[in-house]
Amino acid sequence: MDAMSLCLRRTIGPRTGCSTLLSRIFKIRTERTVHYSSGVLGQSTPEQTERFVPRRAMMYVPGSDKKKLGKIPSLQVDCAVMDCEDGVAMNRKLEARLNISEALDTLDFGQTECAVRINSVNSGFMEEDLRITLMANKLPQALMLPKVETPEELELFTEKLCTALDDRALAEKLRLVIFVESAIGIINLEPVCRRGLELSKSGPYKLDGVVFGSDDFCADIGATRSVECTEVMYARQKVVLTAKAFRLQAIDVVHTDYKDLDSLKRQSIEGARMGYTGKQVIHPGQISTVQEAFTPSPEKIEWATELIQAFDGHQKSGRGAFTFRGNMIDMPLLLQARNILELVKVTRGR
Amino acid sequence: MDAMSLCLRRTIGPRTGCSTLLSRIFKIRTERTVHYSSGVLGQSTPEQTERFVPRRAMMYVPGSDKKKLGKIPSLQVDCAVMDCEDGVAMNRKLEARLNISEALDTLDFGQTECAVRINSVNSGFMEEDLRITLMANKLPQALMLPKVETPEELELFTEKLCTALDDRALAEKLRLVIFVESAIGIINLEPVCRRGLELSKSGPYKLDGVVFGSDDFCADIGATRSVECTEVMYARQKVVLTAKAFRLQAIDVVHTDYKDLDSLKRQSIEGARMGYTGKQVIHPGQISTVQEAFTPSPEKIEWATELIQAFDGHQKSGRGAFTFRGNMIDMPLLLQARNILELVKVTRGR
Amino acid sequence: MDAMSLCLRRTIGPRTGCSTLLSRIFKIRTERTVHYSSGVLGQSTPEQTERFVPRRAMMYVPGSDKKKLGKIPSLQVDCAVMDCEDGVAMNRKLEARLNISEALDTLDFGQTECAVRINSVNSGFMEEDLRITLMANKLPQALMLPKVETPEELELFTEKLCTALDDRALAEKLRLVIFVESAIGIINLEPVCRRGLELSKSGPYKLDGVVFGSDDFCADIGATRSVECTEVMYARQKVVLTAKAFRLQAIDVVHTDYKDLDSLKRQSIEGARMGYTGKQVIHPGQISTVQEAFTPSPEKIEWATELIQAFDGHQKSGRGAFTFRGNMIDMPLLLQARNILELVKVTRGR
Repeated sequence: MDAMSLCLRRTIGPRTGCSTLLSRIFKIRTERTVHYSSGVLGQSTPEQTERFVPRRAMMYVPGSDKKKLGKIPSLQVDCAVMDCEDGVAMNRKLEARLNISEALDTLDFGQTECAVRINSVNSGFMEEDLRITLMANKLPQALMLPKVETPEELELFTEKLCTALDDRALAEKLRLVIFVESAIGIINLEPVCRRGLELSKSGPYKLDGVVFGSDDFCADIGATRSVECTEVMYARQKVVLTAKAFRLQAIDVVHTDYKDLDSLKRQSIEGARMGYTGKQVIHPGQISTVQEAFTPSPEKIEWATELIQAFDGHQKSGRGAFTFRGNMIDMPLLLQARNILELVKVTRGR
Repeated sequence: MDAMSLCLRRTIGPRTGCSTLLSRIFKIRTERTVHYSSGVLGQSTPEQTERFVPRRAMMYVPGSDKKKLGKIPSLQVDCAVMDCEDGVAMNRKLEARLNISEALDTLDFGQTECAVRINSVNSGFMEEDLRITLMANKLPQALMLPKVETPEELELFTEKLCTALDDRALAEKLRLVIFVESAIGIINLEPVCRRGLELSKSGPYKLDGVVFGSDDFCADIGATRSVECTEVMYARQKVVLTAKAFRLQAIDVVHTDYKDLDSLKRQSIEGARMGYTGKQVIHPGQISTVQEAFTPSPEKIEWATELIQAFDGHQKSGRGAFTFRGNMIDMPLLLQARNILELVKVTRGR
Repeated sequence: MDAMSLCLRRTIGPRTGCSTLLSRIFKIRTERTVHYSSGVLGQSTPEQTERFVPRRAMMYVPGSDKKKLGKIPSLQVDCAVMDCEDGVAMNRKLEARLNISEALDTLDFGQTECAVRINSVNSGFMEEDLRITLMANKLPQALMLPKVETPEELELFTEKLCTALDDRALAEKLRLVIFVESAIGIINLEPVCRRGLELSKSGPYKLDGVVFGSDDFCADIGATRSVECTEVMYARQKVVLTAKAFRLQAIDVVHTDYKDLDSLKRQSIEGARMGYTGKQVIHPGQISTVQEAFTPSPEKIEWATELIQAFDGHQKSGRGAFTFRGNMIDMPLLLQARNILELVKVTRGR
């Protein structure tokens, strides 16, 4: 944990005697709620502020393809998703689970986040996915849960995950990334995120991101996907808005034509400008284009660096509201700045 | 009822001994709810799966114009809406009702769905619209209810409809298509659809579709309609998303400049790509352009044909999850495929 | 109060013996509710129909800049916002408050609405902003409350405002304009507006408008603002739709590059076409471009003039539904027409 995390912890921890106005600002900001919700929205618990995990590109690798799994360490991708779901034929699910379990124990993922995408709560496969892949000695860092439509599904998932983990001790919580891929999922996204954050408090994971599964969404409503994504404008922007309201990462649509790098670049830049933090990819050739588009600009890095320096100085002096370049800075901006620096630090050289 | 409907009925009917995984999938899918709703969302009751009624073009004919009513059978339009509402001057409402009642009894609508648009619940005209038009010996197949803004309006409508029908026996339920045409209507669309589906269970109708009345909507919020529809993007995509979440048809905006067929075609294709199943038209010259744009492509028909064949085969073999072209198929896709084939069958030659 | 206001009052006041159908229409329209709300939506109380206050351009003037404050009377702007918030450095807040209090008493604002933007409820500055600026002998006509995210914040604001006003008698209610500038604010906008209207009934203000603060919103979700505003399409259209559902004004995004009048014009026209009633400006050079774009077209003025004449005639004759150019006219359209004429009357010559 770096100095920044420490000072954030201090600020938002249990009542301390620190600078009163600032703590009041942060206290109120972190306690703000979505109306009629019993849950706390955007509350930055220590878990949430501990570390920003970059997922500029999030690449799927079919669990049934051992050769492709073996290549993950050479990909320099932020997040590798070993897949039990759509990328794996129905009669090869068991094989995929066993391969993934083995890969977890034998591969050196380096700076790449290793994630496992299980099948959805209603698929009938989830329990076995969890049971077998989590038999590995080294657990995955993140679980990806597709096709989430209701808060109740998250409850069922949590129950089954606890069963699969038995009483196994966790060095750190698993990270959970959920997928919204249907009309109902879009309608219910707000209560789903809220429940996910509530369950994160006591459960073995912390909810960390939301993926917009635009292809399944289009199939669900009978829409036809285009490269320009105009037909999913409403859903795509509702997803990023809702995810960010809960301080979660937002992962943008996949571009399935992996040879068309021009469109991929355009779409990536567009997604980044909307507030998405990363994008799904299905081919190694897409990684560098996407990761570049989701890397903050030099100006943004400079802004973040100076903001954090100013905040550190302010914390030492200890009084009054925190301002930077003439504006009062609140928690969301501070977290943004911190995440930008974390992203730069972690991904340097990729 | 064709074989497909039968097998769907079997699948989703009361607990049977059929293939357990599949039934589990379908059971869960069909029981999924919108959070905090007491009602069941997307539940495919036998009524709902009985028949897909194409409404690629939905054409308004003023009830006060007897000559135009008489031409309906020659139009080859999927759905003809005999209008008591906006198309009829205030002092000719009675005349319109009587004309429509007579048309119901005397015209041969052939494959065209014959529908009646009554005035809105709050207009002061609805009760008389219902009383007089439903005096016909042959009832309309569908009722169109404009300007719906709250679930309570649907309750009032249901009550008045029951009164008008008295205890008349229905060979099959009336179909109900509702209009969303105001800011409040857009805000309330989800609870309106949910209540409509609940009322459909016991009432004399089944809710079957939602029409986006963009011109009244624009007047309501003070917006100016353009051919490109950019000013209503949010509302237009919220309507199709919500309708589809409840497995209802979604009928797109009208293009009032009926001589401008190029824009009509562009707008129709765009709506179809967003997931809309049909479009309102106001002139016979618009019908063929619109119906063509909302006809599934040969590729989509092939996909649907093969999917349904595979499902039939799977039902016979009786075990395991149902997959097609490598993907697990769930209820929404199955319904989509069925609807495409039904559409093609019913509209062949139009 | 002009004749129009009087007749509207008569129509929507306590049960009268006037034309039954019309009163039924209006009664129902004005009583329509957002589902599950206890509050009344869109109810046109006498306060709300008293006067339409044009805010085609809403210009910020930093309270700390005495010279700029002094120039307000020469600007010919619909609404001048004397700012305590983002336009004022942290160490000059007190100076800004005192300047504004003095300006309220000494400047002749003429037809320009004089407004004060205080700091947000959670800023720690609001109470002092209210206490000092409202010490003036002449109160501002409107208060602008930034960064509203929850209904509870409005309750706190109301409490503090009442304290600051003490028991001071008000010639007329203050007008309140709220800002939505974050993801949570967008999510909560509907309950926020509803609560604001409820509080308006008994409180010392009436909620009159909603401003979309797109720059802070973009910072909140990590989006990058563009001139075309595509990245905020969802939020921008949700704001105008929700504001209009509650019969509130909607004020569009600011264009910060004040030298670029071409883009300003394009953006203003686009906003007006979406239903926005005005736009934020930050420089005097932007005023005329914006006010022109938000002035109704001659056709619209003609429509409004004739509609109101017809309504007056109808009120005298006293029976039947009110129709105009063949359509039945309901309250939203009548209010729109009235607002257009009020706007034209008040802003003539600007």
